[in-house]
Amino acid sequence: MKGAYTGFVNTRYKPTSNDLVCSFYVEPARGKTMRQVAEHVAGESSVGTWTEVATMSPKIKKMGAKVFKINGNWIKVAYPSELFEPGNMPQILSSIAGNIYGMKSLKNLRLEDIQWPKKIMRSFKGPQFGIKGIRKFLEVDKRPLCGTIIKPKLGLNEIGHAQVAFEAWLGGIDIVKDDENLTSQSFNRFEKRVKETLRKRDKAERKTGEKKVYMPNITAETKEMLRRAHIVKENNGDYVMVDVLTVGWSAVQTLRDEMQDLKLIIHAHRAMHGAITRNPKHGMSMLAIADIARLIGVDQLHIGTVVGKMEGNKKEVVAIGEEIERKFIQAKGHILAEKWGNIKPVFAVCSGGLHPGLIPKLVDYLGEDIIVQAGGGVHGHPGGTMAGAHAMRQAINSFRDNIPLKEYAKTHKELKEAIEKWGYI
Amino acid sequence: MKGAYTGFVNTRYKPTSNDLVCSFYVEPARGKTMRQVAEHVAGESSVGTWTEVATMSPKIKKMGAKVFKINGNWIKVAYPSELFEPGNMPQILSSIAGNIYGMKSLKNLRLEDIQWPKKIMRSFKGPQFGIKGIRKFLEVDKRPLCGTIIKPKLGLNEIGHAQVAFEAWLGGIDIVKDDENLTSQSFNRFEKRVKETLRKRDKAERKTGEKKVYMPNITAETKEMLRRAHIVKENNGDYVMVDVLTVGWSAVQTLRDEMQDLKLIIHAHRAMHGAITRNPKHGMSMLAIADIARLIGVDQLHIGTVVGKMEGNKKEVVAIGEEIERKFIQAKGHILAEKWGNIKPVFAVCSGGLHPGLIPKLVDYLGEDIIVQAGGGVHGHPGGTMAGAHAMRQAINSFRDNIPLKEYAKTHKELKEAIEKWGYI
Repeated sequence: MKGAYTGFVNTRYKPTSNDLVCSFYVEPARGKTMRQVAEHVAGESSVGTWTEVATMSPKIKKMGAKVFKINGNWIKVAYPSELFEPGNMPQILSSIAGNIYGMKSLKNLRLEDIQWPKKIMRSFKGPQFGIKGIRKFLEVDKRPLCGTIIKPKLGLNEIGHAQVAFEAWLGGIDIVKDDENLTSQSFNRFEKRVKETLRKRDKAERKTGEKKVYMPNITAETKEMLRRAHIVKENNGDYVMVDVLTVGWSAVQTLRDEMQDLKLIIHAHRAMHGAITRNPKHGMSMLAIADIARLIGVDQLHIGTVVGKMEGNKKEVVAIGEEIERKFIQAKGHILAEKWGNIKPVFAVCSGGLHPGLIPKLVDYLGEDIIVQAGGGVHGHPGGTMAGAHAMRQAINSFRDNIPLKEYAKTHKELKEAIEKWGYI
Repeated sequence: MKGAYTGFVNTRYKPTSNDLVCSFYVEPARGKTMRQVAEHVAGESSVGTWTEVATMSPKIKKMGAKVFKINGNWIKVAYPSELFEPGNMPQILSSIAGNIYGMKSLKNLRLEDIQWPKKIMRSFKGPQFGIKGIRKFLEVDKRPLCGTIIKPKLGLNEIGHAQVAFEAWLGGIDIVKDDENLTSQSFNRFEKRVKETLRKRDKAERKTGEKKVYMPNITAETKEMLRRAHIVKENNGDYVMVDVLTVGWSAVQTLRDEMQDLKLIIHAHRAMHGAITRNPKHGMSMLAIADIARLIGVDQLHIGTVVGKMEGNKKEVVAIGEEIERKFIQAKGHILAEKWGNIKPVFAVCSGGLHPGLIPKLVDYLGEDIIVQAGGGVHGHPGGTMAGAHAMRQAINSFRDNIPLKEYAKTHKELKEAIEKWGYI
């Protein structure tokens, strides 16, 4: 039985500026060739199905995706913009990252990168603040920003939470973040936590003379999420954080739209990404997820640490950092070129198992335009949260002042203690 | 360096009715034991982090998750309900299916099943209509429902789309569905499509004397999605369809909430699920996704076909069908027991490469409470859409009348032609 997934491979085709281009890794199922499976992928993700249908026309067939490159297990596919609804990320993903993952004719499929045509790029907002806006807001020109996550992840009540935040700020932390699974539980209600913590922020700002930031986790059903964003605004908050993958892209778009008026900075946590990104042969790369998040318009995004408790190798994490922070991306290997135009850069966030001894390597790998978030690496300091905050800020200052960490530790007690507990690389 | 992911394994612990229980497949990274990684998984997904923190207390530690069973590569973890925000699915998933996928200490992790405690179960709505409500609405007591997807997936204009739907209905199809990547593109605008297609539905109902259904795809940013649901209602539609994974769970919850007043039936497409479900060692099972979709409250859900173009073996698809359609689920292997209480059953949808010759096997495997959706298997019929619709309905009628398909085909021309083209099993 001959299927109708045919005519979608055309290696002489040259993508135009009207095409959305995807880079995929593909492993055919047994008995299938790369060319056959390339036909299936491009067909199913555009206008094809498994059998010829009476309702097909030559005009529609011309709208089909085109596989213009097959190289080993890698293919590049060009999709005419007309296949997509501008400004509708779920629709775009239902095409290029939808049914195709489930096809019997393939064993593995990974969406590695997406190149957005202008028509689609213009239909999304991109970040409202981006790196420059955030640096201006925080009044920190150059060094990495210094953040912590309140720990334990769950369990502190509102007052305890605000107190831990306060100590972290006093110790030198710029940014305090809720953990990704803290929203509004019985032991710690959202509204009360926001009020208490922002009150402490004001106090910390008065005491330190520095700008301090609290990022409350508003992850919830869409309307409740927006309601919580408004609570943050009403209490003079500047930021919200959201778990972009567990709320989903519709809600992220809705949140970004709301920020046009509400003017809060969006911090994007990526909880669950590993379910999709971790297998190098299947799912979607973190690079592609970062691409999507930038286009929709979060201001900050977790990209990995290379050196911490979470997986992600140097090459990969550096590439993600560049993808979200640069204006132009050069094509390289399976990474597609991108001209981001008016879409602002997203501030890269490194988090997961970080402590002061890892900062030099981290900055060496990723540059100074990062937000370093340490939870255990602050509150686990032998001297407690405030000492841990001091140690982290000292590590960042040692970079700013261009003094080696070990050298700096000689005259900075908290940093020395941190290094004694956790080591350094 | 000793991390603080300790004290989360307690194999003498007996889960209580207050616990949310998860069944995970786990593969430790090299050099790690199952017990160590079990500690990491339970710790990171509840109250732990990688190092002891000064802010931890015995009371908080008691709220931690408990690994109460380790069996080969499988673990069962009990989470006290207090860790979760009732009615907030993204929060629940940021805990039990969040950061843990990215931990360096493990190589693979798959969430296989979730058992909901009453407190959480009561905080979600479940389906508004469910199987009984849909059968009542469609006035079809017993047989499988008969659906098609308009093909080609993309490219028909609004008038063409409505015309294909009309022919399918006349031929005997109950339910016509948009394809998962058709929303509101320049060649086919949502509002016009809905108006045209529902007008044809009315005509088809008058001509056939049967109830006919159109499921317009409202997949979009949340507010736009709701706006489209209202357009459907204003045009006397009865159904909406949504790609639950590409819009995300926040939007699905928002949609379900809106249906309390709007009273439309929700059809859930699962585009992208394969990115998460396909690897048997990593990600999340389709069973777990189905569990989540039922709890939030979609009325219909794609579960696979066993026999079609999409992967999914018999045992797995049958188990998913039971999970969403039964009132009680028996614990079996890695599947956890569930008492669904007042949460209604979801109508299972089988779609992907189906044609009339596959119906007997499909019904044999999954029973009569299924919605059979065939796109290519209708519009690819040698006689065109209406003949294809006849053939599909004939296949379903042969089941209803308990006559073997081959026998039935002798007196039903369109069925005979379909079998000649595509074969039967």
